[in-house]
Amino acid sequence: MTNPCIICVAITGSVPTKANNPAVPITVTEQIESTHEAFEAGAAIAHCHVRNDDQTPTSDPEKFARLVEGLKKHCPGMIIQLSTGGRSGAGKERGGMLPLRPDMASLSVGSNNFPTRVYENPPDLVDWLAAEMRTHEVTPEIEAFDLSHILQAIRLHEQGVLYGKLYVQFVMGVKNAMPADREVFDFYVRIMQTRAPQAGWCAAGIGPNQIAVNEWAIAAGGHTRT
Amino acid sequence: MTNPCIICVAITGSVPTKANNPAVPITVTEQIESTHEAFEAGAAIAHCHVRNDDQTPTSDPEKFARLVEGLKKHCPGMIIQLSTGGRSGAGKERGGMLPLRPDMASLSVGSNNFPTRVYENPPDLVDWLAAEMRTHEVTPEIEAFDLSHILQAIRLHEQGVLYGKLYVQFVMGVKNAMPADREVFDFYVRIMQTRAPQAGWCAAGIGPNQIAVNEWAIAAGGHTRT
Ligand SMILES: [Zn+2]
Ligand SMILES: [Zn+2]
Ligand SMILES: [Zn+2]
Ligand SMILES: [Zn+2]
Repeated sequence: MTNPCIICVAITGSVPTKANNPAVPITVTEQIESTHEAFEAGAAIAHCHVRNDDQTPTSDPEKFARLVEGLKKHCPGMIIQLSTGGRSGAGKERGGMLPLRPDMASLSVGSNNFPTRVYENPPDLVDWLAAEMRTHEVTPEIEAFDLSHILQAIRLHEQGVLYGKLYVQFVMGVKNAMPADREVFDFYVRIMQTRAPQAGWCAAGIGPNQIAVNEWAIAAGGHTRT
Repeated sequence: MTNPCIICVAITGSVPTKANNPAVPITVTEQIESTHEAFEAGAAIAHCHVRNDDQTPTSDPEKFARLVEGLKKHCPGMIIQLSTGGRSGAGKERGGMLPLRPDMASLSVGSNNFPTRVYENPPDLVDWLAAEMRTHEVTPEIEAFDLSHILQAIRLHEQGVLYGKLYVQFVMGVKNAMPADREVFDFYVRIMQTRAPQAGWCAAGIGPNQIAVNEWAIAAGGHTRT
């Protein structure tokens, strides 16, 4: 394969705080410098969440705007991907930063359980987020927490609902959602290769599964996420 | 295979009304007679929902009690399975009929999208329903709307959370959840055969997919649901 592997760096996420790891960048200034280091080390996509001063997650478009401005300055050419994930806001708040026209934004197309609650992505919100991304020419990265999410992403892309090239991320190892399972991973890859051969895909393992899933993805010719 | 195929009849469901099909049994009396006919025709399990007088779904334990009493009289030996599905009630209401000690009850162990909303089965409710079933010695039928639900069912059964023998139903063809997909069906069967060889499994196709999925299940040595 001469297809280069794209490394996406998730610098902050929505959950960990400095109590978990002092290296987690929380302020916009910390986030810009952390991304800059990853960019110098070879990361091509920055997957971004923003935080309040008390480290809790937010979807505040003004904070995202300052982050995007700094990333464009410090990391010229890096692909900027903003999270529309449900831990950082509710309903349409989750897409309030899309008018910033980032290169990419994450998009969940189905619902599933998380460790202690339901990760809710109701069909009408999915449709609205996808339409907003189309309006602002933002390419979604589909966060697939289960097999049906991959099939739904392929269907939505075929229907023209999703802007740009289809790009799917397999998320594995979240408690009560899909575990980091090698046989399932291989099936996911087969589905992508046979049903959406033009699409890109990457994989992320949560917590202790990170390195294993990164290795599976790179060996199988996919892309990867820290 | 000398393993007989078990046919489960879903006489009423939670959605269709007499406007959709005049044959849908709504009153308890209609339900008992409809089940009796299916029992005579060879059905071994009755999957039961109950309805209010206006045909809307309910989880009313008193109504379930009258249905169970009638089924025991008219269909001696038939396995009675009561629905704890989320269309008929919210939260713990969904398990209010478990003290009736039916042979089986349906149990969802994950969340997913339905045509217009999220089908919410939060982890604490799943744990509570499973514990109630264990207390009242009710064998769950796991309603698997996605692949991770099957893996979760196998895990919960290994952990002793689920009462009785593991029995999984693959539900296919609900809009925004898992479609009726032959390759996915075959993968589901392989997962069950290799990871839970002692378990039983069946499959249901929703609406126009019903007959196709029934045929796949029977041909693959599984059980089936109308
Ligand atoms: Zn994220
Ligand atoms: Zn810098
Ligand atoms: Zn049902
Ligand atoms: Zn009768």
